[in-house]
Parts: sequence; structure tokens; C-alpha cells
Amino acid sequence: MKVLVANLGSTSFKYRLFDLPEGRQLARGGIDRIGQESSHCFVEIGDQEHEVDQAIADHAAAVQLCLDQLTDDNYGCLKSVDEVSAIGFKAVHAAHLSGVRIVDDELLSVMQELFDIAPAHNPPYVKAMRQLREAFPQIPLVAALETAFHETIPPENRSYAIPRNWEREHGIKKWGFHGASHRYIAGRVAELTGRDDLKVVSCHLGGSSSLCAIDAGQSKAASMGMTPQTGLPQNNRVGDFDPFALPYLIRRTGKSLEDILKDLSSKGGLYGLSNGLSTDLRDLEEAAAKGHESAGLAIKTYVAEIRRYLGGYFALLGGCDAVVFTGGIGENSKLVRAGVCNQMDWAGLKIDKQKNRTATGEAVISSDDSTVQVWTIPTNEEIIVARQTADAVSRVSSVESPGQ
Amino acid sequence: MKVLVANLGSTSFKYRLFDLPEGRQLARGGIDRIGQESSHCFVEIGDQEHEVDQAIADHAAAVQLCLDQLTDDNYGCLKSVDEVSAIGFKAVHAAHLSGVRIVDDELLSVMQELFDIAPAHNPPYVKAMRQLREAFPQIPLVAALETAFHETIPPENRSYAIPRNWEREHGIKKWGFHGASHRYIAGRVAELTGRDDLKVVSCHLGGSSSLCAIDAGQSKAASMGMTPQTGLPQNNRVGDFDPFALPYLIRRTGKSLEDILKDLSSKGGLYGLSNGLSTDLRDLEEAAAKGHESAGLAIKTYVAEIRRYLGGYFALLGGCDAVVFTGGIGENSKLVRAGVCNQMDWAGLKIDKQKNRTATGEAVISSDDSTVQVWTIPTNEEIIVARQTADAVSRVSSVESPGQ
Repeated sequence: MKVLVANLGSTSFKYRLFDLPEGRQLARGGIDRIGQESSHCFVEIGDQEHEVDQAIADHAAAVQLCLDQLTDDNYGCLKSVDEVSAIGFKAVHAAHLSGVRIVDDELLSVMQELFDIAPAHNPPYVKAMRQLREAFPQIPLVAALETAFHETIPPENRSYAIPRNWEREHGIKKWGFHGASHRYIAGRVAELTGRDDLKVVSCHLGGSSSLCAIDAGQSKAASMGMTPQTGLPQNNRVGDFDPFALPYLIRRTGKSLEDILKDLSSKGGLYGLSNGLSTDLRDLEEAAAKGHESAGLAIKTYVAEIRRYLGGYFALLGGCDAVVFTGGIGENSKLVRAGVCNQMDWAGLKIDKQKNRTATGEAVISSDDSTVQVWTIPTNEEIIVARQTADAVSRVSSVESPGQ
Repeated sequence: MKVLVANLGSTSFKYRLFDLPEGRQLARGGIDRIGQESSHCFVEIGDQEHEVDQAIADHAAAVQLCLDQLTDDNYGCLKSVDEVSAIGFKAVHAAHLSGVRIVDDELLSVMQELFDIAPAHNPPYVKAMRQLREAFPQIPLVAALETAFHETIPPENRSYAIPRNWEREHGIKKWGFHGASHRYIAGRVAELTGRDDLKVVSCHLGGSSSLCAIDAGQSKAASMGMTPQTGLPQNNRVGDFDPFALPYLIRRTGKSLEDILKDLSSKGGLYGLSNGLSTDLRDLEEAAAKGHESAGLAIKTYVAEIRRYLGGYFALLGGCDAVVFTGGIGENSKLVRAGVCNQMDWAGLKIDKQKNRTATGEAVISSDDSTVQVWTIPTNEEIIVARQTADAVSRVSSVESPGQ
């Protein structure tokens, strides 16, 4: 079964094409600057790469162009679009409609109701999924919700101290996100160590960052809460913040609640801490090395918040067997990894400085006498979504054609 | 020098009278139901107790009645009101006017501007301090701010990931509170252990609760942030909450931002989690023992949040030598202490169940082989405020009369 996994931005579309159940990647590609004068479209099939620049009006047109490339007579890997059994999406937030499900009106309507809960994620997904449903009615669309992996979080780690009916009636609780990534890490650690009973803290650090406490493969706590704006500082989103500061800020700045929250979700995070220098940790590391004070503060605060959650999750799990760094920052920033793992010997965690400096791909970076293993593991959210999508499509087929 | 330390509620006034520099407590007393038909007023001097019931209009009248009792010809411990050198207040929030300072117009004005930042605390204090200034112009009033102890928190542990000018211009940062209590614990641990270089986590658990990470006597992190509503769940205040849920709640409930925040600061916390059963942990323990599900959730969530902060502060401190439980819950709830210390041996912390069950007053409740000492220590915020008040009055006197 061939499954295309889509990764949507407001003006971009990236995808990978998988052959299931083997999980072999057949192709990858993408288009950026959708809706602008000229879009760049590329595809990689095997060791071949093809590119084209042309105007692309919307996400439906983007997917059409990608499918044209994948079925190209000369270099395509598909004979026909009919071979694509489904398109899977790493969708972020649909509240009680969590799990993995066929994209339908109900899902789109709930995701739309949550636009201001997940302002960077839900709007482009809903828009694109609506376009694709209309343009490709024959291809099932499957949403693998980022919250699904966290359904095993126990009530005491997912409840806010609010009136109980707010949780029952409005779904106000710690949903957790980055589920595909944390699920992949949970599975990959079990494969790499040959143990499926470990206590693991998965540190997904990147443009957006979250920690997840995992016990025997199940999520037990996650740093993002009701919305993907909470938890650790993100590239430009605030992370944990005190809501009781809002009326005061509204009064002092003359801005509306909406504007203050927009600032917190677009001018906060590493960008805010660095006084607007950059959303990119690599820029901040470079500037901090040259003595840029706010860049230094941004990195230190980011590391301190990761440490605070890490220690907290050690406590919630009652100890920890393995810490995993993944995501763009987690896989690549030896500085952040070293900061997070510094002075953690009281918890049995010791980093090997040399291994940390030279780590690439899947690597152990803890010292031999560390009782907590520390890993770098490149995440693979797409293969998780591909498998979930294939499962969902198979389930639906077996329900619709029970006799076959 | 005789100093009266005041503890104000919106309809109550409690006090202790100290003789400094010895720190001997000469008397204690209080009045409740101020402004109602009949107030109950009591005073304890030595082993004598005296009570009277009468209508008390406001806090100025309450203080007048207390001073009458303290100077009573038959049982009083003061010859004249002139012996009272100052009245000290454990004031909560005056932003950049932190520290210990004489109550003046500027302080009152800043505290008033922060009414919605500290709605349970600042309004009654400002009101009472204004009344007392007018009624007793000859007695200096001193505010010992709860934020003062936390001025040593490093930037990375006190910054929110917000635009930097919000911190510079509006003071939006993690101020920390319960400073008098955490300062007392820091000093008392040093006395009890004979070591002033220890890493300590002070757990002030009571009607309002916060954790403080202390290194060599200095605060390095505190769980309450910009306002005393954040951090751990409180008796009826929410603790950490996701501000991006607010527009959604406003839309779904039809309430205003002010009303939602009022609910979060009066119907949240243990009260909210227990589905409105009680704000008092003792009631919740009793109900949970009988199978009340929401009471059980409230206790479990409270304990989980304490654990999350405790582990986080171990990480921020780079290890921990001593954990201290104080405050009404910390000193008295063996259930909460046992829950917090359960499965913490990975951090070298082991509780002695028998010692925990029978602990009263100052006691070690860790086992002999625990590398982290665990203590119960009754806090004494009043003696801290008394000393700070005496110091402040002496400083002012020496400035005003430099030649004497």
C-alpha cells in the first residue's frame, strides 16, 4: 500500500511517499511559496532529483503538481495516481476527536473551532485538507492527531486545577503534542536497547519543543498543555506563562487580549528572549559566542526550562533509564545537550563530552558509568503517520467490505 | 525594640508582638469578622489569655482594640503604646519596590496598581495600611515584601520567554513569593545542620503553596511567577495554567476575561479539582479515604505537581542536600509528604515511613541511608518580618539622626 504523508505549512507542502507495510520510502518532495508569484517544487526518487519553478495557487494545486511528478513517464515511481491509497496528515489538535481518523466534516469543524488554540497549526491544515478533499475525492485523507500518543497520561498529570466541568464540557486539560515524534522515540529506544519496559524522557527540541515522560512505551506526561504554546519556550512561542499577567499587560500596553496573545505566540520564545535577534538557535549560539547578552539569556533560559521539565519527569516517572535528544536542536546542538546534562550526576546521569561533541545519527552520548543512558536519535514522524494512515484505511476498508 | 507584626485578611487581623533583637515573643492576638455585627478579639500574653466580643468597624479600630489590650492595666505587657517602635507587614507584591521599606504613598500606589495581579492579598493590605497610617501617624509602618528573598534568582530562572521590553517596562517576570517563609527555612536549615552551603528545596505547603530552590542560603528559583496564582495548585487558586485557553473559554462560556480569571483564582486549586468539595486538604484526605473520586484526584494532582517542581529544582540546583516540608500541610500531612517522597531513591532520597508518621515540630523524616535529608520544620514568617522591620526602622533612624 502506497501512502503519501503530508507536512503542511501555511505556504508550504512537504511530503514523503511510503510503501507499507515494509515502510520503505519511495520518494520525498515539496513545494514552498505557495500562492506567490513563483513556487519551487522538488522531488527525490531514489537518487534522482527533479526541480521545477512555477506559480502554484493553493495546496490542491501543489499536491496535483507533486502527483504529476510522482507519475512522470520518465522519472516517476508511480504508474498512476490510483496507486496512492491515502494521504496522511500529522494534524495537531482536534480535542476529543483525538486518535487516528478519516478526515470528515466533523473533524474539520472541530479543528476549525480550535483555530485560536493552535493558531500556527490548525488553520493551514484545515484549509489544505478542505482543498484536497474537493480536488481528490477518490483519495482518503487520514488525520493522525498529535495528541493521540498522550491518551495514556494519567489524570493527575493531565488535569489543570480548574472547575471540573471545564474539563468535562470544554476539554480544558493537558493534551500534549508532538505525539508522532515521541511515539517514534518510544519505539526506537525499545528496538535499540532490546527493552520495552524502560522509563524514558524524550526531548523533542526544534522549532517547537516538548518533553515527554514515557514508561514502558506509554506517555505519562507531556510539557505542552491545552495548547502547543505552553511548556518549553519555542522558536517564537512563549511556553509557560502566567495568565494573571494578561489584564495588567492589556492595561499597560493598551493592546487587546487577542493582540497580547498574538505577541506571545509570535514574538516570544527564543525570538523574544534574544530581543528579536532570531528564532533560530544556530544564530543564537553564534551570537552568544561573540558576547551577545540576550542571545546568551535565550539559550540559558531554554536550557534551564528543559532541565526543569527533565528533573520533573524523572520524579513523575520515579526514575529514568534513558534520555533521548531528537528534533533539529536535539539532534544537532551539542551545546544544548551539554547544558541539559551538566551536573546531573546526582541522578546517575553523566554525559561523555567527547561522544556528545562527535555524535551523529543514532548515538549514545552518556559515559560508560552513567546509569541513565543518553541518546541522540533522529526522529521519524512520517513513518509513524504512514503506518497509522495505512492502519486507518485498512480498518475502514474491512468495515465497508466485511465479506471480502 | 518592640515590633508588632501584622497578618491581614480582608476581615481579619492577627499579630505577634516581638522584643528585638532577642526575638522573644511577648504576645500574640487577633480579631476576626471585622466589619460585621460582632468581632471576636483575643490576646495571649505569657500563659494568660483574654477575650472580648464587640463590633469592630475596620482594621484601624481592630489595631486600636489590640493596643488597648496590650496596654491593659491588669494584664497588659506594655506600659504605653509609645513602646511599639513599628508595625511590620508581610506584604505580597509591589513589583520593583521589593525589599523591606517604610510604607509611603509611592509603595501604596504601586501595590494598588497590582490589585489584579495579587487580588487576594494586595487589596486588604493597602486598605488596612492606609487606615493605620491615618490612625497611628506616630508608629512607622514597614512592608517586608514577599518577593524580597527571591532577588537572587538568576535571569534564566526568572525570565519568561516574552519580548524583552515587557520585562524592562512592565516588570513581567517570575517574582516568587512566600519569601519570609523560605528565608526562615533557609536560615533554620543552616542552624540545624551547621552548614550554610547546602542545596535545599523548601516546600511551603498550606492554604497557598510554593516551592523554592535554595543554594547556600540564596533563592535560585521559585514556583510562583509573576503572580501568586501560578505554580502549584493552591487552596482555591489554579496554579500553572495555559493562557491560550482563555479566548476559547471566553467564547464557550460567554464569560468575560475578568470573570474567567476570577473563577481561576477562587474556584480552582484543590477546591476546583475536588469538584467544589473543599479548599481544605484535611477534608479532602478524609473524603478520599472514603472513596470520593474528585477528592482523590485533587490530592494526587497536588502531589504530582509538587513532585514535578521538586525534581525540576533538583535539576536546576544540580542536586539537593535537604528537602524541607513546612506550612500547614507540609508540617501536618504525612500523606502528602509520603506521596512527594515516594520512589525518589533514584535521587538518593528515602523517607522513613515510621518517622514520617510520627513527626512533630522540627524532625528528620528521611532514613539513615538517604543522601538527601528530609525535614519537617514549622515556619516562622513573623520573626523574619519582625527582624526586617527592626532593621528598617533602625536604618531610617540612623539616616534621620546621623549625629546621634
